[in-house]
Amino acid sequence: MEAYGSAFKGKKVLITGGLGFIGSTLARRLVDLRADVVLVDSLIPEYGGNLFNIAGIEDRVRVNIADVRDEYSMDYLVRGQDYLFNLAGQTSHLDSMREPYTDLEINCRAQLSILEACRKHNRNIKIVFASTRQIYGVPDYLPVDERHLLHPTDVNGVNKMAGEWYHIVYNNVYGIRACALRLTNTIGPRMRVRDARQTFLGWWIRQIIEGQEIQVFGDGTQLRDFNDVDDAVDAFLRAAAHEEANGKVFNLGSAEVISLKDLAALLVDLHGKGEFRIVPFPEDRKRIDIGHYYGDYTAIRQALGWAPRVPLREGLARTLAYYTKHAAHYWELSP
Amino acid sequence: MEAYGSAFKGKKVLITGGLGFIGSTLARRLVDLRADVVLVDSLIPEYGGNLFNIAGIEDRVRVNIADVRDEYSMDYLVRGQDYLFNLAGQTSHLDSMREPYTDLEINCRAQLSILEACRKHNRNIKIVFASTRQIYGVPDYLPVDERHLLHPTDVNGVNKMAGEWYHIVYNNVYGIRACALRLTNTIGPRMRVRDARQTFLGWWIRQIIEGQEIQVFGDGTQLRDFNDVDDAVDAFLRAAAHEEANGKVFNLGSAEVISLKDLAALLVDLHGKGEFRIVPFPEDRKRIDIGHYYGDYTAIRQALGWAPRVPLREGLARTLAYYTKHAAHYWELSP
Repeated sequence: MEAYGSAFKGKKVLITGGLGFIGSTLARRLVDLRADVVLVDSLIPEYGGNLFNIAGIEDRVRVNIADVRDEYSMDYLVRGQDYLFNLAGQTSHLDSMREPYTDLEINCRAQLSILEACRKHNRNIKIVFASTRQIYGVPDYLPVDERHLLHPTDVNGVNKMAGEWYHIVYNNVYGIRACALRLTNTIGPRMRVRDARQTFLGWWIRQIIEGQEIQVFGDGTQLRDFNDVDDAVDAFLRAAAHEEANGKVFNLGSAEVISLKDLAALLVDLHGKGEFRIVPFPEDRKRIDIGHYYGDYTAIRQALGWAPRVPLREGLARTLAYYTKHAAHYWELSP
Repeated sequence: MEAYGSAFKGKKVLITGGLGFIGSTLARRLVDLRADVVLVDSLIPEYGGNLFNIAGIEDRVRVNIADVRDEYSMDYLVRGQDYLFNLAGQTSHLDSMREPYTDLEINCRAQLSILEACRKHNRNIKIVFASTRQIYGVPDYLPVDERHLLHPTDVNGVNKMAGEWYHIVYNNVYGIRACALRLTNTIGPRMRVRDARQTFLGWWIRQIIEGQEIQVFGDGTQLRDFNDVDDAVDAFLRAAAHEEANGKVFNLGSAEVISLKDLAALLVDLHGKGEFRIVPFPEDRKRIDIGHYYGDYTAIRQALGWAPRVPLREGLARTLAYYTKHAAHYWELSP
């Protein structure tokens, strides 16, 4: 299957969360494919948006600072777009428990208003929504495929589940082509490393570069899978380019499954120095921990020809190198 | 298994949607069980609340007119309650597509704020949430059990799914005991019959009593299951009384499965007169139709000893008799 052919050449593309980790990496790929790219981001300091993420492509994209909760702005911005990569979201599980309404506004209401804007002004758009494996909760079996029940463990998971299904409903009821990718842990340059709010691995990377000891929660045997951001971006582009994806949800995932303690050891090995320690879960994290997780990505492989290509070791090395060089742009609150 | 013993005697019970069909029937049973019952209802004219639903028990319950979207009122009302039967909701599938934000506010945000109120002021409450089989969408197999994937077909289904899962998350994370019942079509006196917004069967009942022809959409072979409201109420009480229900979702259902055209014929037979005609689906209904549905209620039977007892024929006859007598209180907008 041809990956995307000329699907994006000269096409108008909107990316919500476009200054974030995956959004900005997607933008880089899309400008290379000669798309006309608009990035929407609110640059909420605690979230993932960072203007440095588009360093070098500033002149090839248009940045529109706006919050996806802002109905009127979104109502305007979706018009005339060929593709919407809908990546804006509140992604912190702990924050979703502390501020459930904020999570609801961003992950549910804003998604609904983006879809309503498309229904009213641009029914020809194709939407790819960034969902998350988090909505599966504690796996009933491994690897987790798309037939696995959704039983989210926190408010964020519930809201992301709803956000995903609004997209599927609008695809099925209104014919607004939409699909969702359930991302697993995604790594790479531009991932959020300031704290552990979004991903523990970003935090580990910062700690190891700063010479601090990494803390591995639990007993360290918890299994996880990781996708390099370039592989995740490839999945978004395939899902956008192919009609077979419409109305579907697909897991991403990796055949390379690793325990948290082996991951910490790998980081130390790649960095050439550093330490990690296995410590008990803090209470607030234990309550929303999901144990082992790794996903089955057979469905997207069969439907869209996607498979992860970047080995974990290579992706981690590239990420460490990026942050060793660009720490100053990521350690503090953006922008 | 003892049904509920003295679980409700002298206990404080709050029912949201308490002036509606199931809420008011639950209230009748609870006052007989000597509970101290507060009914919360906003009496939104198009919804199911109707003061006539508590005719005869007005002096044995306390009615508090309030909207579940009103955070401050709910924040107060949950305090000191032993049980919350959480039945308030927007239940119209078509309305949810026309006014998705209203559906979101009632079925998601209000649910979250009720749970937040309990977290802050009454962690000892036990909550039973009224969910719906609608969240399964078009069945992958029959009968539908709780292992069936949720793939809602409309915004209402997405929001009810989220509302249900907020309850489970608050049970699991905060230990606020909660469970959900996925109701199927519920019938009985006090069901909403003014129009087809909530349930087609209510509308049929009104039409047959008014001497109008019933329209059966599709080819009439679609299968459905029905629960008598007394059986549904029994399920709510068992779920409240038994700790085994905490954190669980249970289907209700019936072994008596019937096609829509046989149901129409049964109504005509019971009423002694009337007509029905099979007509094509209107476009807006066809898009959210779910085909055949009937549920597997093995899980609640095994966990709580629940099974439906009232035969469909008997329930329908009782319902027809009720509306033949009390039409004046139900034909027009309440209150």
